[in-house]
Amino acid sequence: MIQSVAFLGLGAMGYRMAAHLPEHFDTVYVWNRNFEKAKQHAAEYGTQAAELNQAVQADVIFSCLPTSADVEALIENLNIKSGAIWIDCTSGVPESAQKLAASLKEQNIDYLDAPVSGQTIGAENATLTVMVGGNAQAFEKALPAIQAVGKLIKHVGASGAGFAVKAVNNMLMAVNLCAAAEGALTLKAHGVNLAEALDCINASSGKSNATETILPQRVLNRTFPLTFALPLLAKDTGIAVDLVRQAKISAPIIGLTQSLIQAANDTSEPNSDFSSAVKMYESWSKITIE
Amino acid sequence: MIQSVAFLGLGAMGYRMAAHLPEHFDTVYVWNRNFEKAKQHAAEYGTQAAELNQAVQADVIFSCLPTSADVEALIENLNIKSGAIWIDCTSGVPESAQKLAASLKEQNIDYLDAPVSGQTIGAENATLTVMVGGNAQAFEKALPAIQAVGKLIKHVGASGAGFAVKAVNNMLMAVNLCAAAEGALTLKAHGVNLAEALDCINASSGKSNATETILPQRVLNRTFPLTFALPLLAKDTGIAVDLVRQAKISAPIIGLTQSLIQAANDTSEPNSDFSSAVKMYESWSKITIE
Amino acid sequence: MIQSVAFLGLGAMGYRMAAHLPEHFDTVYVWNRNFEKAKQHAAEYGTQAAELNQAVQADVIFSCLPTSADVEALIENLNIKSGAIWIDCTSGVPESAQKLAASLKEQNIDYLDAPVSGQTIGAENATLTVMVGGNAQAFEKALPAIQAVGKLIKHVGASGAGFAVKAVNNMLMAVNLCAAAEGALTLKAHGVNLAEALDCINASSGKSNATETILPQRVLNRTFPLTFALPLLAKDTGIAVDLVRQAKISAPIIGLTQSLIQAANDTSEPNSDFSSAVKMYESWSKITIE
Amino acid sequence: MIQSVAFLGLGAMGYRMAAHLPEHFDTVYVWNRNFEKAKQHAAEYGTQAAELNQAVQADVIFSCLPTSADVEALIENLNIKSGAIWIDCTSGVPESAQKLAASLKEQNIDYLDAPVSGQTIGAENATLTVMVGGNAQAFEKALPAIQAVGKLIKHVGASGAGFAVKAVNNMLMAVNLCAAAEGALTLKAHGVNLAEALDCINASSGKSNATETILPQRVLNRTFPLTFALPLLAKDTGIAVDLVRQAKISAPIIGLTQSLIQAANDTSEPNSDFSSAVKMYESWSKITIE
Repeated sequence: MIQSVAFLGLGAMGYRMAAHLPEHFDTVYVWNRNFEKAKQHAAEYGTQAAELNQAVQADVIFSCLPTSADVEALIENLNIKSGAIWIDCTSGVPESAQKLAASLKEQNIDYLDAPVSGQTIGAENATLTVMVGGNAQAFEKALPAIQAVGKLIKHVGASGAGFAVKAVNNMLMAVNLCAAAEGALTLKAHGVNLAEALDCINASSGKSNATETILPQRVLNRTFPLTFALPLLAKDTGIAVDLVRQAKISAPIIGLTQSLIQAANDTSEPNSDFSSAVKMYESWSKITIE
Repeated sequence: MIQSVAFLGLGAMGYRMAAHLPEHFDTVYVWNRNFEKAKQHAAEYGTQAAELNQAVQADVIFSCLPTSADVEALIENLNIKSGAIWIDCTSGVPESAQKLAASLKEQNIDYLDAPVSGQTIGAENATLTVMVGGNAQAFEKALPAIQAVGKLIKHVGASGAGFAVKAVNNMLMAVNLCAAAEGALTLKAHGVNLAEALDCINASSGKSNATETILPQRVLNRTFPLTFALPLLAKDTGIAVDLVRQAKISAPIIGLTQSLIQAANDTSEPNSDFSSAVKMYESWSKITIE
Repeated sequence: MIQSVAFLGLGAMGYRMAAHLPEHFDTVYVWNRNFEKAKQHAAEYGTQAAELNQAVQADVIFSCLPTSADVEALIENLNIKSGAIWIDCTSGVPESAQKLAASLKEQNIDYLDAPVSGQTIGAENATLTVMVGGNAQAFEKALPAIQAVGKLIKHVGASGAGFAVKAVNNMLMAVNLCAAAEGALTLKAHGVNLAEALDCINASSGKSNATETILPQRVLNRTFPLTFALPLLAKDTGIAVDLVRQAKISAPIIGLTQSLIQAANDTSEPNSDFSSAVKMYESWSKITIE
Repeated sequence: MIQSVAFLGLGAMGYRMAAHLPEHFDTVYVWNRNFEKAKQHAAEYGTQAAELNQAVQADVIFSCLPTSADVEALIENLNIKSGAIWIDCTSGVPESAQKLAASLKEQNIDYLDAPVSGQTIGAENATLTVMVGGNAQAFEKALPAIQAVGKLIKHVGASGAGFAVKAVNNMLMAVNLCAAAEGALTLKAHGVNLAEALDCINASSGKSNATETILPQRVLNRTFPLTFALPLLAKDTGIAVDLVRQAKISAPIIGLTQSLIQAANDTSEPNSDFSSAVKMYESWSKITIE
């Protein structure tokens, strides 16, 4: 029985995710590097702003940080409660999950890599998709806590499997986005009506989240709202390429897409949304996707 | 007012498409190279099996053949009714559409390139998507005939625009399929549960028609049902690359995917469904996507 | 026996090539769109500046223009001497060579596609490499004229074969250059001494004309001298991709390189040497190859 | 002053390299996992077959093993002479060199990564190219030993730099080979005389070691002599990709080539020479490069 829960990292996702926990658990600690945010969360949602050492005495500890390196640095000198389950919602590195799971196991702590998808709206409505890697029994025990924030929750494999699925998901999104941009530019160069063409494609076999959502809602209307930063997509596509390398398989489109996202990121303005990757293509062709 | 309609080419798509025409038009001619099929269609649906020269006296003439070269060869020596509209549902070559439109215009005939998507089920239910290129007035006049077979019908631009959208759609499908195969193999190589992973991706930003439909319904169950032949996909991706070249833009993922589909086609067994393209990746990695 | 020779197109290459002809032939006509250049050539080398219609009465007619389209436009309304041999040194399109050879044959004129390599220094010293496509007997008859400008002269196949070899050569150069740039940036990013590294590579299996000549003589010294314009390389790599498409084979690296050269060209400054293609990579990585 | 030298690993390269050492040094130990080979070397060249622990008492210790993992495993429990210099001629991993250099430094031992190129003929003639990473003073001290086996010897940077240059060299070779194969198949598909075409390219800007040496001496004559195994090239191209990833730069052609070499290796017969990579292309196009 989970009685106390902590949430570490109150960014755009974490802040909204942690808001659901008081509905389900008696004690909910929240912590953030900028501690004012934790206090604000406590005031807004009835959670308790706690020091790190107190927070990690909870039965279940969520973390949601930018990178695996941040999680590793955070965990390093912590004295976590024996028997606790650490649920890491970071979009992290599978190898790091394996290392953390092994070293925390020695302290009788279970570590689950549990990245989420669904964006801030999913975090707000507790309808996130959660892909979980790690020990199956720990997953079962942690499930009530995960259900407080997620809707589709899947145990996809051993430690690192959750991070792997997230990295591949984001890679596929990147591929589909780049391909959609290339296709859109080709059509526009030939004088095709882009909006009508997208309607057709979205009713046909070529559709993807990129043609259905990203192009119409972020690119064609030229808003590029910053909800998922391009450097983070560059990081995630890099993780996917590393997975390919470790598996010693051949994945040419994944490799090429990582190169393109890397180049797009290297030439982007600060604080660019991932959808801005199409601007690299636009700068090449001098054609705007609108 | 359209009174007579002809349908040339009764393949898997055309046979079903032509079946809807008698509900809307008094006179419906059907023709097929293997003429027995035309007779069978007449017996089954109340159409009239007609010689080619008679069929092209209709107000509206549909064609649905394997390639633009087939349509060009068919049209070459025909004496088509002045004032007729030719609606070409072939997945054809934009340049060919431009040539045909120009030369038929000299005989007072309008040519619309009007490829369809939606597969045989869409043809059967008259719910096809139709992307139409050509003269806007001819499109308006032809609309009642197109509505007899399609649901989402869009005029996407001048002659060739319909073929261009279809080629790009099929290219995007090919990209998304190849990327999904690469991602699936990467995950499986790392011991991830593939079915659960796909569920997560299909609720996330990486989803596409390839992850939602093609992998689950054709690949994971190892059926690879032949509904769209791999050589035709190779042809369509080639058309997309030619469009990129003519536009003098840079589309690296489109280019690479065409190379991969070409190689997959060159090493495939006869009568392979397009989804069999993943088998090339499987033969490389010795991992099966199941 | 060749008695009269004409040279059409006195650009950087043609001007120098035509200069050798008076040593070997009695009558040498030269022509250039900007006719002043023809007069200057006549004054400098003892050739005869001639109107186009007079020039094409020569036994052998050389052309050296920017593109096949230019050659086609030039030939269109000319009244060429029956029995003449036309030697086209343009870096042209194989399909165009086949068309020109066929149509000139009807006027009893042989057309050889005979692109050259060796740059202006090779033109100056009459040491060009000449790769010739077309009728073998015409090649034999034309050989004395070609020997006046070239050193290594090869009959590589039927009409278009010469252009094909040139396009593939330039494509290989582009591949090797892009790869060398990628490798150099990788090494520099890791703190490796680039000059020493290139010395090692040039004594090893990775060497190419790009590592031996282009990087040291054009890039590392930041001179990028304009001897072969980047748009012309973009054109030639495009011809190579078209050859791949026509052959229906899979050539992924050729395809990708064409995309990269196209993008590099689209983002380059006017009058950029082909070696400036590396600047695209530099703008991505913010690292300079020096 | 170097008085004693050891050579660990008497493979095709090491056996020949170690043979030169007795000309320059009083005491030369040789060691090999299969110890019979060490005894044979001693008998043939006047070296001393020594146990590992004795060998590592030499002033300078060469190693030449298949991979960095082999070197790490070998070094792990050794008691190496303080003040010695370890010269690792393996084609290894830069990160491993950095780790080994740091840990050996603690035992007052210098580690230089010093991979070689030049093949067995270069080993036999002591004309190898040696690219050395590591401490500059250690390099100076080790130079007389390296000069016993090499001709062009360069200090290219800090620890790992030597391995990095070797990996990039082999990657460039792989790129140039794949591109040459693609180009050759394209030309042959168009009926071009391949031998004549290669002569032209080798006198032109597209030339590389692949067109000058590998295609004529290994592929066109269908010998594919096993001198450098394809799995080792796959390993080296992987190291290059990892370097790109660590540098966070975009190198699309390097990435794609690694995918292609990986696929070629995965589908090759056992004991294939690296030049057999072209057979993958041949199996796609059903055209033989001969």
